[in-house]
Amino acid sequence: MLIGGQPTRTIWPTAEGAVEILDQSRLPHEVVTVRLEGLADAAAAISEMKVRGAPLIGVTAAYGMALAASEDPSDPALAAARARLTATRPTAVNLAWALRRMSEVLAPLPPAHREAAAWAEAFIMANEDVAACRAIGEHGADLIGEIAARKPGETVNILTHCNAGWLATVDWGTALAPIYVAQERGMALHVWVDETRPRNQGAALTAFELGQQGIDHTIIVDNAGGHLMQHDQVDLCLVGADRVTGAGDVANKIGTYLKALAAKDNGIPFWVAAPGSTIDWAMDDGVAQIPIEERSAHEVTHLWGALEDGTFGVVQVSAPGSAAANPAFDVTPARLVSGLITERGRCSATAAGLRGLFAEA
Amino acid sequence: MLIGGQPTRTIWPTAEGAVEILDQSRLPHEVVTVRLEGLADAAAAISEMKVRGAPLIGVTAAYGMALAASEDPSDPALAAARARLTATRPTAVNLAWALRRMSEVLAPLPPAHREAAAWAEAFIMANEDVAACRAIGEHGADLIGEIAARKPGETVNILTHCNAGWLATVDWGTALAPIYVAQERGMALHVWVDETRPRNQGAALTAFELGQQGIDHTIIVDNAGGHLMQHDQVDLCLVGADRVTGAGDVANKIGTYLKALAAKDNGIPFWVAAPGSTIDWAMDDGVAQIPIEERSAHEVTHLWGALEDGTFGVVQVSAPGSAAANPAFDVTPARLVSGLITERGRCSATAAGLRGLFAEA
Repeated sequence: MLIGGQPTRTIWPTAEGAVEILDQSRLPHEVVTVRLEGLADAAAAISEMKVRGAPLIGVTAAYGMALAASEDPSDPALAAARARLTATRPTAVNLAWALRRMSEVLAPLPPAHREAAAWAEAFIMANEDVAACRAIGEHGADLIGEIAARKPGETVNILTHCNAGWLATVDWGTALAPIYVAQERGMALHVWVDETRPRNQGAALTAFELGQQGIDHTIIVDNAGGHLMQHDQVDLCLVGADRVTGAGDVANKIGTYLKALAAKDNGIPFWVAAPGSTIDWAMDDGVAQIPIEERSAHEVTHLWGALEDGTFGVVQVSAPGSAAANPAFDVTPARLVSGLITERGRCSATAAGLRGLFAEA
Repeated sequence: MLIGGQPTRTIWPTAEGAVEILDQSRLPHEVVTVRLEGLADAAAAISEMKVRGAPLIGVTAAYGMALAASEDPSDPALAAARARLTATRPTAVNLAWALRRMSEVLAPLPPAHREAAAWAEAFIMANEDVAACRAIGEHGADLIGEIAARKPGETVNILTHCNAGWLATVDWGTALAPIYVAQERGMALHVWVDETRPRNQGAALTAFELGQQGIDHTIIVDNAGGHLMQHDQVDLCLVGADRVTGAGDVANKIGTYLKALAAKDNGIPFWVAAPGSTIDWAMDDGVAQIPIEERSAHEVTHLWGALEDGTFGVVQVSAPGSAAANPAFDVTPARLVSGLITERGRCSATAAGLRGLFAEA
């Protein structure tokens, strides 16, 4: 999608055998490209959230394995690389999925052939992610079109949480892809952007994306969505996912569950957009089973942003000396999810619904 | 309650006929006292949120009428003063209640007697607020004691939203008063403090209060409460109110409704602590009837805090150019409220429950 009118992806290989990424920790204030020269850089980019978003974490991990294969293609080295990348973040299942797929490709090969195969497979996975997200966009735009048809001549108001846009993937996004395709189809849209504390990926990344793409949007604090839903200001909630159980429970950025409750209470459809790689078929009770990352308290008590003099700084907003806790995700039970939008189409948030689209899994 | 170990109130008259307040817009980083010399200062202190919290807004407005009566005790001047103070903030009904009460005291008097009567009445109202809050504390501590009795030897975990502590009143607070009285009674407590975006009154004020009072607490982002409730980390939700309808609907800081939904979904008691002056007997449908203040978008996009060099600054956290909306309150329907804690005791969030305590209203 666009930055400054130029089509851009979040990650790409260079001719010199490195990988480049957009450093998302500097957005929306600076567009900075960072070069990942080896496995250590890739692992740090994920854990420090220079890249984030379940699909992009998966693709970055795949490129991390390619970088590792360039450094040392031996079995022990690749096993260590896989373990190191696995440990970067616990909640997004796409990470484990991507690493498993890379291992399945690389393990049977003689070490001398692994480097080329790893780069090729990571590139294929990146392009598959783009295609899957575009397909999610088409299926989701159909859903938005159905809602638009029920209020002809009026704007469709969509509420989203966190960033599940193209910055969370290689391109297009998951929850925002339907909005981009709906824009192509000429629908009148407005997006309520949850700021998404503590890291403000909504206010910083989703608002940036939508602004660059010319889509009407308004930032709100995470507290505001329920009030807007009570007053008929929201037609559809559309979010991404970091892990979906085989029964349809959805782990996503902390606070998603609260919006799902409000949608249910007000009869508003609540849809989750995610590729098949986000489904964890081994789990069927998301609240009990999905590991929830606990991140630094500093993310809650301090905020980075642009100072009035044009420089950047960090402010402490909390009472000095007070402790903070920072669970990064929550789980929305399937009973609150109207349905899932995948690259293969829409389905109910049930085992039967998911199996209907992914029979081979 | 305590600041630096010294008992402190939020507002007090001076010997020279002025009023002094704690400037809450500087907390938690600086303890600053501001002098209100006249009506204009009082109105500005309310609208700029140097004082905030429904009960304290009411008492500040009462002192504002006393300052006005010192300036000009004529009927037209006092009518203009009342109109000016009424316009400062729309949602807290205590403001209208306090101004009505002052008018009822002053209107029958000859102008020459009004100044002394106004100061006396404002002082009475401040002391009544302290007494009402202490009584709320006693009744609420009984409730906490009942919960503590069901988990002997364990800590009671209470989640609160925004600041309904002594900083929201003259002293003691509403939602936090039960916690302070429970502390006196020796109960083991821990408080989850919602940071309460956009103005962070939880992270800034509630955490400051609890820290000064030596009560164990943890700041969380507003998104986190649902997750904690799903995982049995919350025994009780306890919040204040800016307006309660005669049917028990509760207007409170934006985001309260989302916590009430999560409490309901997880079978956790959700209680609202407020004095009788917060009840608006003329309303019976909070979502439809209670006016919701829309505040500046700047509060959403920019944050004030302490910089690393010890100075203070404002950072923009959102994408430049993106719009923001800032509704400051929402309404929690009575069906989600376990009950109300008033200075006269506890009651159900129903017309019958409220009338049972306030038969004369």
